[in-house]
Amino acid sequence: MGEFDLIDQYFRRAAAERRNDGVALGIGDDCALLAPRAGMQLAISSDMLVEGRHFLSTVSPEALGHKALAVNLSDLAACGAKPVAFTLALALPRVDEGWLAGFSKGLFALADAHGCALMGGDTTAGPLTICITVFGEVPAGQALLRSGAREGDDIYVSHGERESVGDARLALESFRGMVSLNEALFARVRTRMERPQPRVALGLALRGVATSAMDVSDGLLGDLQHILKASGVGAEIAIDSIAGHAHSIWADSRFGLEFCRNMVWAGGDDYELVFTAPPHRRQAVQAAARTTGLQCSLIGRITAQTELVLRDAQGQVLPNDFSSFDHFKT
Amino acid sequence: MGEFDLIDQYFRRAAAERRNDGVALGIGDDCALLAPRAGMQLAISSDMLVEGRHFLSTVSPEALGHKALAVNLSDLAACGAKPVAFTLALALPRVDEGWLAGFSKGLFALADAHGCALMGGDTTAGPLTICITVFGEVPAGQALLRSGAREGDDIYVSHGERESVGDARLALESFRGMVSLNEALFARVRTRMERPQPRVALGLALRGVATSAMDVSDGLLGDLQHILKASGVGAEIAIDSIAGHAHSIWADSRFGLEFCRNMVWAGGDDYELVFTAPPHRRQAVQAAARTTGLQCSLIGRITAQTELVLRDAQGQVLPNDFSSFDHFKT
Repeated sequence: MGEFDLIDQYFRRAAAERRNDGVALGIGDDCALLAPRAGMQLAISSDMLVEGRHFLSTVSPEALGHKALAVNLSDLAACGAKPVAFTLALALPRVDEGWLAGFSKGLFALADAHGCALMGGDTTAGPLTICITVFGEVPAGQALLRSGAREGDDIYVSHGERESVGDARLALESFRGMVSLNEALFARVRTRMERPQPRVALGLALRGVATSAMDVSDGLLGDLQHILKASGVGAEIAIDSIAGHAHSIWADSRFGLEFCRNMVWAGGDDYELVFTAPPHRRQAVQAAARTTGLQCSLIGRITAQTELVLRDAQGQVLPNDFSSFDHFKT
Repeated sequence: MGEFDLIDQYFRRAAAERRNDGVALGIGDDCALLAPRAGMQLAISSDMLVEGRHFLSTVSPEALGHKALAVNLSDLAACGAKPVAFTLALALPRVDEGWLAGFSKGLFALADAHGCALMGGDTTAGPLTICITVFGEVPAGQALLRSGAREGDDIYVSHGERESVGDARLALESFRGMVSLNEALFARVRTRMERPQPRVALGLALRGVATSAMDVSDGLLGDLQHILKASGVGAEIAIDSIAGHAHSIWADSRFGLEFCRNMVWAGGDDYELVFTAPPHRRQAVQAAARTTGLQCSLIGRITAQTELVLRDAQGQVLPNDFSSFDHFKT
């Protein structure tokens, strides 16, 4: 099977069937054509996933197709943008039809769920690498940015009822052989690692409510610091708020609070939203959470000083030794 | 140097300095924000370049930075779109500051020349892979497509005065040790291979003149066949039109016409435009060529039958054994 047959069989038909009205011209020309509706800006994000770094070689192709798009949709969610379309550039070591069938199935299932059309891309031979660029619409001036946090704002992180930031990291540690989990917990956190659900509906519901937002991909505390830096503010963090939640849902007596703190605050790969909103919008935040079937846990408060202060449940200040994931540090 | 320092030092400042008015928000948030002007569509193209497949490991980082963007701008040229902005996703085996300085220099020099702003992207560790997604503006309904060729249209290919399609392939064959070139010719064709000049100005000049267009990346004859297929037409090709031109400018007595035909028609990596226009627009085509300092060589004619007929200078029909580049065939 050659390059063009491959595109035809696994990506073109599927794309045409699921064409989005916003896409004027899809796969098969030098460029795709796209026009946002009047008054709308395009929110654009690009992520590259490399085998052995962003995903394990043992992951199912269907889960990988899901995750490759999910991490990009998560960036749209963080901006409060509605998904419209995406491009896919794919380097493959060889043409493996079983792999392609699984990958495209996982990819299109998530794309369909969000009304997001594949409109073009590139396919080449090379070490397995996936680069997706995603396009969403947001009313001009209404995008959620990292720079809008203000003194006194509450800080929240999203998650489902039986979920927490840190789930994906716990799964990774299990794959690495560092912890052993009971079957039910492993299944739950593995799904969180391999099939993250981008918080698109929550991002839309937070437009006009949140003052700043970003998605948690490299670790909650490190990612929050991007908001603080962009907004020129600091924060007081209740370290055991969400760590205590994780401790209770993981419910494994071998995991102490210290371990849970590390998983939660330095975990990475969560694709939850961390965001800020003023205290008088607490009801609006909880309404957004309810509408989307999620929880938004209060984890701290924005301060005027550009410092980050971590406190335990007793109010004691803790040292910040939670380090974020960095692709060029180990 | 970590991931975020790397982005700051080599990509962020340079991007801010060269911010394009069309880009509402650039590097440093979850998404970039972009809004095309009223009446404009966005033309979008994504290309992935893999070391050892799209470029030799010996290429200078500056030339690579140039070429990575050039191949994407070439797709905009083929649609008649004006470059606006691009995203860059980069997998690097290690942080090599000399490499990054050279790469970003070559990249931004070409970006500046085309008023195209870097507005976001991703950086990760991995086998050297570059994925650029480029955005251009084109008035709604005026994009040059592959599907507009009509019976009787002339077929053209672009090139500079002392240039030809096939130059890049000749350079590649020299790097492979298959041919030995004199120093001046090698320098010339090496530049064509390593620093292709995207025909953006020609693409813009051909709006309203050309009936179809695409850029030549995988081989002239194979790429032309994409136009024929998309347009539901055939073509009669004067095989020695442009092959004779190549033969004369390469001016090496060891290269027979047969060899030149192969370089020209199956070469690849040319980033010239192949396009069609009705015979009554010949003056307009030549005016577009003059304005942009290029030549547009007539290489054939569109026919109603969906066949591709190749003829030599004596009018004899030749077998089509020129095969295009396919990333999954060798």
